Amino acid sequence: MIIVTTPGITPDALDRIVEHVEQAGLRAHVSRGAQRTIVGCIGEESRLGEHGLTQLEGVERVIPVLKPYKLASREFSVANTAIHLGDVADTVVGGQDLVVMAGPCSVEGREMLLATADAVQAAGARVLRGGAFKPRSSPYAFQGMGEAGLELLAEARTRTGMPVVTEVMDPRQVELVARYADVLQIGARNMQNFALLSEVGRVQRPVLLKRGLSGTITELLMAAEYVLAQGNGDVMLCERGIRTYETATRNTLDVAAIPVLKRETHLPVLVDPSHAGGRAHLVTPLALAAVAAGADGLIVEVHPDPAHALSDGEQSLEYGAFGEMMTQVRAVAEAVGRRCGWREGMLA
Amino acid sequence: MIIVTTPGITPDALDRIVEHVEQAGLRAHVSRGAQRTIVGCIGEESRLGEHGLTQLEGVERVIPVLKPYKLASREFSVANTAIHLGDVADTVVGGQDLVVMAGPCSVEGREMLLATADAVQAAGARVLRGGAFKPRSSPYAFQGMGEAGLELLAEARTRTGMPVVTEVMDPRQVELVARYADVLQIGARNMQNFALLSEVGRVQRPVLLKRGLSGTITELLMAAEYVLAQGNGDVMLCERGIRTYETATRNTLDVAAIPVLKRETHLPVLVDPSHAGGRAHLVTPLALAAVAAGADGLIVEVHPDPAHALSDGEQSLEYGAFGEMMTQVRAVAEAVGRRCGWREGMLA
Amino acid sequence: MIIVTTPGITPDALDRIVEHVEQAGLRAHVSRGAQRTIVGCIGEESRLGEHGLTQLEGVERVIPVLKPYKLASREFSVANTAIHLGDVADTVVGGQDLVVMAGPCSVEGREMLLATADAVQAAGARVLRGGAFKPRSSPYAFQGMGEAGLELLAEARTRTGMPVVTEVMDPRQVELVARYADVLQIGARNMQNFALLSEVGRVQRPVLLKRGLSGTITELLMAAEYVLAQGNGDVMLCERGIRTYETATRNTLDVAAIPVLKRETHLPVLVDPSHAGGRAHLVTPLALAAVAAGADGLIVEVHPDPAHALSDGEQSLEYGAFGEMMTQVRAVAEAVGRRCGWREGMLA
Amino acid sequence: MIIVTTPGITPDALDRIVEHVEQAGLRAHVSRGAQRTIVGCIGEESRLGEHGLTQLEGVERVIPVLKPYKLASREFSVANTAIHLGDVADTVVGGQDLVVMAGPCSVEGREMLLATADAVQAAGARVLRGGAFKPRSSPYAFQGMGEAGLELLAEARTRTGMPVVTEVMDPRQVELVARYADVLQIGARNMQNFALLSEVGRVQRPVLLKRGLSGTITELLMAAEYVLAQGNGDVMLCERGIRTYETATRNTLDVAAIPVLKRETHLPVLVDPSHAGGRAHLVTPLALAAVAAGADGLIVEVHPDPAHALSDGEQSLEYGAFGEMMTQVRAVAEAVGRRCGWREGMLA
Repeated sequence: MIIVTTPGITPDALDRIVEHVEQAGLRAHVSRGAQRTIVGCIGEESRLGEHGLTQLEGVERVIPVLKPYKLASREFSVANTAIHLGDVADTVVGGQDLVVMAGPCSVEGREMLLATADAVQAAGARVLRGGAFKPRSSPYAFQGMGEAGLELLAEARTRTGMPVVTEVMDPRQVELVARYADVLQIGARNMQNFALLSEVGRVQRPVLLKRGLSGTITELLMAAEYVLAQGNGDVMLCERGIRTYETATRNTLDVAAIPVLKRETHLPVLVDPSHAGGRAHLVTPLALAAVAAGADGLIVEVHPDPAHALSDGEQSLEYGAFGEMMTQVRAVAEAVGRRCGWREGMLA
Repeated sequence: MIIVTTPGITPDALDRIVEHVEQAGLRAHVSRGAQRTIVGCIGEESRLGEHGLTQLEGVERVIPVLKPYKLASREFSVANTAIHLGDVADTVVGGQDLVVMAGPCSVEGREMLLATADAVQAAGARVLRGGAFKPRSSPYAFQGMGEAGLELLAEARTRTGMPVVTEVMDPRQVELVARYADVLQIGARNMQNFALLSEVGRVQRPVLLKRGLSGTITELLMAAEYVLAQGNGDVMLCERGIRTYETATRNTLDVAAIPVLKRETHLPVLVDPSHAGGRAHLVTPLALAAVAAGADGLIVEVHPDPAHALSDGEQSLEYGAFGEMMTQVRAVAEAVGRRCGWREGMLA
Repeated sequence: MIIVTTPGITPDALDRIVEHVEQAGLRAHVSRGAQRTIVGCIGEESRLGEHGLTQLEGVERVIPVLKPYKLASREFSVANTAIHLGDVADTVVGGQDLVVMAGPCSVEGREMLLATADAVQAAGARVLRGGAFKPRSSPYAFQGMGEAGLELLAEARTRTGMPVVTEVMDPRQVELVARYADVLQIGARNMQNFALLSEVGRVQRPVLLKRGLSGTITELLMAAEYVLAQGNGDVMLCERGIRTYETATRNTLDVAAIPVLKRETHLPVLVDPSHAGGRAHLVTPLALAAVAAGADGLIVEVHPDPAHALSDGEQSLEYGAFGEMMTQVRAVAEAVGRRCGWREGMLA
Repeated sequence: MIIVTTPGITPDALDRIVEHVEQAGLRAHVSRGAQRTIVGCIGEESRLGEHGLTQLEGVERVIPVLKPYKLASREFSVANTAIHLGDVADTVVGGQDLVVMAGPCSVEGREMLLATADAVQAAGARVLRGGAFKPRSSPYAFQGMGEAGLELLAEARTRTGMPVVTEVMDPRQVELVARYADVLQIGARNMQNFALLSEVGRVQRPVLLKRGLSGTITELLMAAEYVLAQGNGDVMLCERGIRTYETATRNTLDVAAIPVLKRETHLPVLVDPSHAGGRAHLVTPLALAAVAAGADGLIVEVHPDPAHALSDGEQSLEYGAFGEMMTQVRAVAEAVGRRCGWREGMLA
């Protein structure tokens, strides 16, 4: 059950609502948004008479939520959540625009990062991606440049004006990464790292939450709920392929997750065609499929020289291939009623 | 190894090629197409000197095939195979046209079938689907109308001119079904029913081969090879969702299978968005994703009254929803360079 | 709903029961066992008053069945079904004895078959397995010796007295295979080949039904129901590993399927550790796990020279390794209260 | 490549080995064991002549490691690693004894914990399990008692003498948990939480590392490698069921992982039959299967009143059922040559 309070509710009125909920033996979960404060009630709802509640000062509406996810559910917010990225705030995910995020898997150095930033921006990307802390299966593999990588991302942002998204893997690094990045990415392996989710829920930075390798759609929404429950409402969900028996592709893009999520939640839905397919030649078809199925955006790996990338070279696009992808993506996006901020031939 | 023979090769020359292959201890597999006869060589290829072969009369080319599928592989035929459906032959799958097949899951009666045939044709469908023999998990569920259903399908073809696709489940019924139907469908559960595959390989009817619930892409191509190896080259592959851990959808549409298959084989690739998602509201987004990713066609379940369908009602579209799907499919299809034979508003 | 009739019910009484059921709009499914005749009622059970039924002559009990499988369910038969194999009938599966079936994947020739039969019998096996018709992913792979293989199996039976189990893949061959074999095996790829299931349901030969590569436990029981519904009650279920994302083994043995099946059904449950693991060194540990978890029997691939087997060599045991397996299996079987018909050192 | 140094190598000799490796452009990874110091060489091994290496003072052997896991591999240590739990050190995992860990899913209070500890000890358990920090899919579910729970676990240890295993979810809590617990558990959701793995690698406490819901066996070993690479060699691996399409059980116990792991690594292998099956009636058969297949130990959920447990009640055993399980486990364990430290009827 969710209690939506009136705008400008007084602290006293809010306290009395919380007290009322707790006296009924439930936990009250106060979530303060820019406009409204929401009180989520967790526990045996039958003990809480709706009538008594709606008569309390400051209560606007009482909403039952049947799904295990509450704040993330469509019941909670009928309108799509549009998330503003960066301080300039001209990049909005979850609205009519299709937003493409692109850049290298890992930040490998200054020159390659700035060149890639320029290239993807020229082709129409609006957000720069790049890993500074890398989750690698092997402890002996390149683990990312760390803070030096974050500094380079910040430099690329200054140069291009593009907001920057990068992964954070450790709750102790959330503050550090949030100092540099505009969007905090939670990787697939950490989808159910609840300590990390709670920590990014406490900072005011949009979060890009990737679906786990075997995460169900419900679990993905529950993971988002961990962030939302801490008061950070700016969560973008990202389908990036799930693990199945098929070995012809790195993962299996669950393209149906897009319309399922759009129906279940008000949060924006992105797709990562690079990790989904794991091969460069699959990136464009999967990107087109994702856009056709209703994705709000894409996140794509681009590298100046994929053959020599320190990570994920096999699935990274060269500049030219990325430009061609963007041209095709625009055609499909417009066919399904999306607005694209880039023109054909923009790259040149 | 595949030996492509010259057009108009004499029986004697062909015999000598086969003899040459068999003397080297390999099996020769003669496949007679309309234009060419192909000799596939199965066995220890190292025993067969390429030099000696190319000097034989009637040998045009010798092609090594590294994949386990030979006749189905791109190496075997660089050009896409275009398959003509029906006797009128104006419906071609695998060319530039996007072909939509539609109709009820099961043929339930005359009136519903003819009405559905009219409706889907009006909306732009070019092929009528409908099950007369139904594979059902339960022996107690409706098993289809059998031959009476085939007769109704034939009547619908006569009425509309649309070729008809229907499933065959039993090698003993191939001849019967081929008498009525233009396309023989092999269902997902029978993808590795090798007796059935061989039997449909022996008739001259195009085959629509569905991917098994846990069939790999390689196994799907090997199943097609069973049909091709019997001399029937008209095989359409159909991705219809695979079985994964996710329960929010009936199956998981493996949209990446489309570009993987287009790269691996010359055979046309269709998608069944109805079985993939298992919910009516998912059919259109999945259809759009499939077309965007490069599918040559769709096969969609349409029913006049899904709530009372004898099978698969939950995933069947009403006429109106199908018409809307077709409008959206056309927009995406044209965005990716496909030609569509229907106009917007055709339904009315 | 299942109507259990009294022993020795007259044809007239049975007719009246069926008539009663059909007048209520349901289908009646008569299944004649050695002792009892059962009438399964399929359809809207609410239309059929239980009271009216129990008053009919010849009705002993009326049992509601909530599961989709009826005849296969524990509700239908509380006691375990024990199946007698062969004409001599001293080999019973589903009782206290642990029964081991063993032999080559494929019958490759007379000498190898007879030698293997002798070897596995000496080690304690009670049933000889061997494939005459082989389902192979590739149409170019060895497809089995066919009827000649069946003849050799029959010869091996005559020589050793062991009943013989072999796969049948085609409904047109059921009669042929049943002429030679004591047990008809339905392979994993054919678990939902309903035409084949119905056909083996019509002969009086025990059936060994393998779980499909991605068959659920419920689907396996529904497949058994297809056989049972035709009147053949002698179905043994076989867990042989399912398809998952893990590639370290050929399949993933779902050892929990054993206790789940033992709770859900009265039919015997076997395990095939050879296909489950796909590697010779995994056969013994998986066999032990299966027996510990409650399996009624095992079916194991044994070959005189696995390195040169025409199929499945990687997972076949040599005679010596099979003998060691049997010794260990006996120890575990006895630890869980099973009786084993073989002695340690029997091989020698 | 792994350099095994001679016993009692001097710091100077070790420095020169490291210097030699680094001059060749590789990273040297020094791991100090009780007996030996090992230098793992990570990077382009071809640059490092083996000859030059073996001539250095203090080098005993140079071992190539082809697997992606180095320290975890069988190549690195032929003998099984036996891990001493607790300060008293009479509980050893990885030796001949089968070790059973048991206790409640969550520590819910003092009385229930102490009672459960007494009960499981009486039945033969040697290690007490209990969660103080609980990873829950929902942020609104009971998250564990936290440090208060750790204090109760420590009290239970004092009372019974049993070492205590409990989960740690956050790298910031490793020090806290290590202060109370004898074994640090890494849960399935955190198998690839590399920050956490590295942190538990830095403390001197044995680690129980659970396989992720869709972790491959190789990934599990790579996760162990993260711990080992930090110098903590005491890692126990735990198979607890993987995620598949089958819904009859909570997860699918991959029993074959046991023999695969025993062949690939020297680390002990445990099994958690409670999470694998997810139903109380499956715990005993799965435990028996695990022991038969070669597991070194079990970790089992036991609760005084499963119907009212705050978490995982459906899969928890009552005291009596646990006692019966232990009796059966002992029989199977002895059948496969394991030693059990408990007697039948010990519970009473």
